[in-house]
Amino acid sequence: MGIEIERKFLVAGDFRTGRSVPFRQGYLSRDPERTVRVRIAGDRAWLTIKSLTNDTTRQEFEYEVPVSDAEEMLALCDGPLIEKYRWFVDYEGMLWEVDEFLGDNAGLIVAEIELTAEDQPFEKPPWLGDEVTGDRRYHNSSLVKMPFKSWPQ
Amino acid sequence: MGIEIERKFLVAGDFRTGRSVPFRQGYLSRDPERTVRVRIAGDRAWLTIKSLTNDTTRQEFEYEVPVSDAEEMLALCDGPLIEKYRWFVDYEGMLWEVDEFLGDNAGLIVAEIELTAEDQPFEKPPWLGDEVTGDRRYHNSSLVKMPFKSWPQ
Repeated sequence: MGIEIERKFLVAGDFRTGRSVPFRQGYLSRDPERTVRVRIAGDRAWLTIKSLTNDTTRQEFEYEVPVSDAEEMLALCDGPLIEKYRWFVDYEGMLWEVDEFLGDNAGLIVAEIELTAEDQPFEKPPWLGDEVTGDRRYHNSSLVKMPFKSWPQ
Repeated sequence: MGIEIERKFLVAGDFRTGRSVPFRQGYLSRDPERTVRVRIAGDRAWLTIKSLTNDTTRQEFEYEVPVSDAEEMLALCDGPLIEKYRWFVDYEGMLWEVDEFLGDNAGLIVAEIELTAEDQPFEKPPWLGDEVTGDRRYHNSSLVKMPFKSWPQ
């Protein structure tokens, strides 16, 4: 188990550097109190349970599973799958994970940074846009039922 | 992944022989299409995903997890926990798993046998009662919200 502390931002410039990995994921539970996610990332796969503690902090349990199991579990998931590229971008000694969504969420790009404390300071990269930490619309589990293309502009 | 084929019966006599293990379990998803169960059995723990394929057969994915993780995940579960003793009873070369429920399900005793084919023959032990295969009231995930003590007699 771990406690996950992260802040989430929109992206307002060209962030593309570093490597990217294709992600495909779905949810066995989309209940915010206990989401259960199946994710295939490149050639590995994970089952992840998260609880909603508060806007910045979540309890998280993650277990690697065989990709063949994950493929079959994705078929059991509730709703369409989320597909995206995850970019791993270093900036001033911190790792940013930038998700470039595909399919019904194309056009949405979200950057996350994982912190060790809620008030930990960090340098903002020049491509960073508005903060959306705690905005549930940007949860991947919400994007299943309310994809970005359905949002009022 | 495995396909689980099992038949389930009530118990109408004294079955107590062999060993028993205390089970404590809860559900991160009780959706019959994709149940996600956390179980502590004695000093080990598992996370299990099942899909409902038909009355006798289910897809099942099971992963062992640390007991300390399972304890924390049980606290995230939807609804009260199921507590029972599972007895492992050999009869005519087949293994019966007999669940003797506690708490709000006390009085309920259910025996299950796992088969390799839906039509596989087996000997019925003298203590076996009526068959309840496919009756969703007896699913542990249903007993969370509709425990045995709440059933009309």
